[in-house]
Amino acid sequence: MREIRVSTLLNNYPVRIGKEILIESIDFIESIRESRRMFAIVDEKFSELHGEVLRAFFKRLKIKNDEVLKFYATERNKSVKSLELIYESLNNKGFGRDTMVLSFGGGITGDVAGFAAATYMRGIPYVNFPTTLLAAVDSSIGGKTGVNFNNVKNLIGAFYQPQAVIVETSFFTTLPAEELLCGLGEVIKYAFLFSEKLLRYLEENIQGVFALQFPIIEYLVEKSVEFKSEIVAKDEKEKGLRKILNLGHTIAHALEIEQEHKIKHGAAVIFGIVAILFISEEIGLINTQTLSNYLLIFENIKSRVKLRKIKYDKFLFLLLKDKKNRRGKIKFVLLKQVAKPIFDVDVNDSVIINSVKKTEEYFNAK
Amino acid sequence: MREIRVSTLLNNYPVRIGKEILIESIDFIESIRESRRMFAIVDEKFSELHGEVLRAFFKRLKIKNDEVLKFYATERNKSVKSLELIYESLNNKGFGRDTMVLSFGGGITGDVAGFAAATYMRGIPYVNFPTTLLAAVDSSIGGKTGVNFNNVKNLIGAFYQPQAVIVETSFFTTLPAEELLCGLGEVIKYAFLFSEKLLRYLEENIQGVFALQFPIIEYLVEKSVEFKSEIVAKDEKEKGLRKILNLGHTIAHALEIEQEHKIKHGAAVIFGIVAILFISEEIGLINTQTLSNYLLIFENIKSRVKLRKIKYDKFLFLLLKDKKNRRGKIKFVLLKQVAKPIFDVDVNDSVIINSVKKTEEYFNAK
Repeated sequence: MREIRVSTLLNNYPVRIGKEILIESIDFIESIRESRRMFAIVDEKFSELHGEVLRAFFKRLKIKNDEVLKFYATERNKSVKSLELIYESLNNKGFGRDTMVLSFGGGITGDVAGFAAATYMRGIPYVNFPTTLLAAVDSSIGGKTGVNFNNVKNLIGAFYQPQAVIVETSFFTTLPAEELLCGLGEVIKYAFLFSEKLLRYLEENIQGVFALQFPIIEYLVEKSVEFKSEIVAKDEKEKGLRKILNLGHTIAHALEIEQEHKIKHGAAVIFGIVAILFISEEIGLINTQTLSNYLLIFENIKSRVKLRKIKYDKFLFLLLKDKKNRRGKIKFVLLKQVAKPIFDVDVNDSVIINSVKKTEEYFNAK
Repeated sequence: MREIRVSTLLNNYPVRIGKEILIESIDFIESIRESRRMFAIVDEKFSELHGEVLRAFFKRLKIKNDEVLKFYATERNKSVKSLELIYESLNNKGFGRDTMVLSFGGGITGDVAGFAAATYMRGIPYVNFPTTLLAAVDSSIGGKTGVNFNNVKNLIGAFYQPQAVIVETSFFTTLPAEELLCGLGEVIKYAFLFSEKLLRYLEENIQGVFALQFPIIEYLVEKSVEFKSEIVAKDEKEKGLRKILNLGHTIAHALEIEQEHKIKHGAAVIFGIVAILFISEEIGLINTQTLSNYLLIFENIKSRVKLRKIKYDKFLFLLLKDKKNRRGKIKFVLLKQVAKPIFDVDVNDSVIINSVKKTEEYFNAK
């Protein structure tokens, strides 16, 4: 088992990563539980796939069936309505301030359960068990919690840190390859933002993720948590530096909508990162040779990024809409080189479109 | 104008107190506003009474009519539904992270507006303008925000500190006497918890509050803010010490329900404090002479506490219900002497009932 400590202003908590560590984490959970009652929020699909180990785990912790709430995790259910169901369930079962929430699921479940914990009785402790690679390397770290509202993602939320994050990697065995790709998109992002070494490691081992080679997966989760938590510690509330974590994401978000969500988030992020490399080259931050070198990492996975033909008018409209929301400033995170990101960079619309076109060609040239 | 700085882990902000300080606070507001847009949430009844000064204030800050949301402040409207209306209003009008919320109203308005600010886009700054004496001396200090849910007060909420609190005491001129009494109940509580000097000051000057003598009111607000903020700084999230602020409140809450809310919160708190004095005497923490001495402060206001005959079976049931929720432990804050509170004290049911009976007699002997 690997353990990383995350330090934030209000909390200092461990992230434990390993295969079949769930049962061996029971003593640890008991130690942070103190005498609290427990309430578990569990993604329904996950629960169907891993019911047996979950039941054993809950039994050991003396968590009864009616103290487990199944949650059908969709963007639609990432809602105030779901929060109300959780609050009601907690309150009707007499859960007070001396309660600890456990969350089992991907990013949606963690965000909803975390926000419920952040706001029930002005905040009760929770432990997050991310069950997807994406949640393990991204949303479970950093304390962002929340729900969608008025068709805006994460409009309502809070910064709230868990007591612990426990990454049971054997849960990843039931993830489809496109889900693994989602996680990998973020790992690649961290490599470009922080570490030439990680970039090289990915180049050589990226296929190992799809082959479920656990030492590779665990190393990637560990490094990702390490890099993300360092940034979060420096800028917990996203006032500045933390923005670099948006590398590739502005383009990814517009692309996801333009492709009518037929493209997976992970694939869109990978597309977005490549587009950022093209933009960085186009405006002279990196040279053509470096660009080619950087693109190597995508060779083994580019075929997994499946695109419909991009409608550029729509794509630009979506980017500009975003731009309007930010009062005319569309800001990008770009790269001067690996581990040398710059943020809040204004980029010309035509440069964006050119670079996105090159990116589309890159992924279509299979 | 008086100014007190409140220091918490995440924030350090001023509380400004004075008569007709609203317009002179504009430069200060501009200085903390930076370039943020502003959105005001205003208690409807307050707005009817003080519309003119409010309009002048908003005009100077270039806050447009559609950037002001009227809120009809009732316990019923202290709800998730009201939060949704605020979120919707903010989102539909394009308010982003660069927004500052201003709240004008009593405790309910401040709690709802504060929680909306705490959770909109994971937290945007807000400034609280408490318009009642109670909100000025109590709820506006300490960062507790939230709404009722499932018929439980403040079940959903967050600890979230404002950027500033501005207490315009001329707003208090339109408060009915029973509202002033609500504020006074808390001031008396602070006196017993922290300061013999404040207790003596109150003994001599308490009538000045009802006569709207502003120097007296301002002194009382200042001292209250000072004492409360010191405790909050030491125990922001109510893990221990902050509990002393509940002095008299457990009994007050049960009494309010027992009296079917025909008694005002302030009167109930005053009743609760007196009951705590009787309990403290009954179990030998203070002697009879000291008790008589302490009761002097209530002489001038006891006639304002109007009670129906207490039904003790119901009263005890309500206390025990509370007890059940806390897993069998009903904990009181008691006094060893002025400024020497002790908390988490178990008290025998019969001692409670005896003391509450004495308290009832005390207030009925007019």
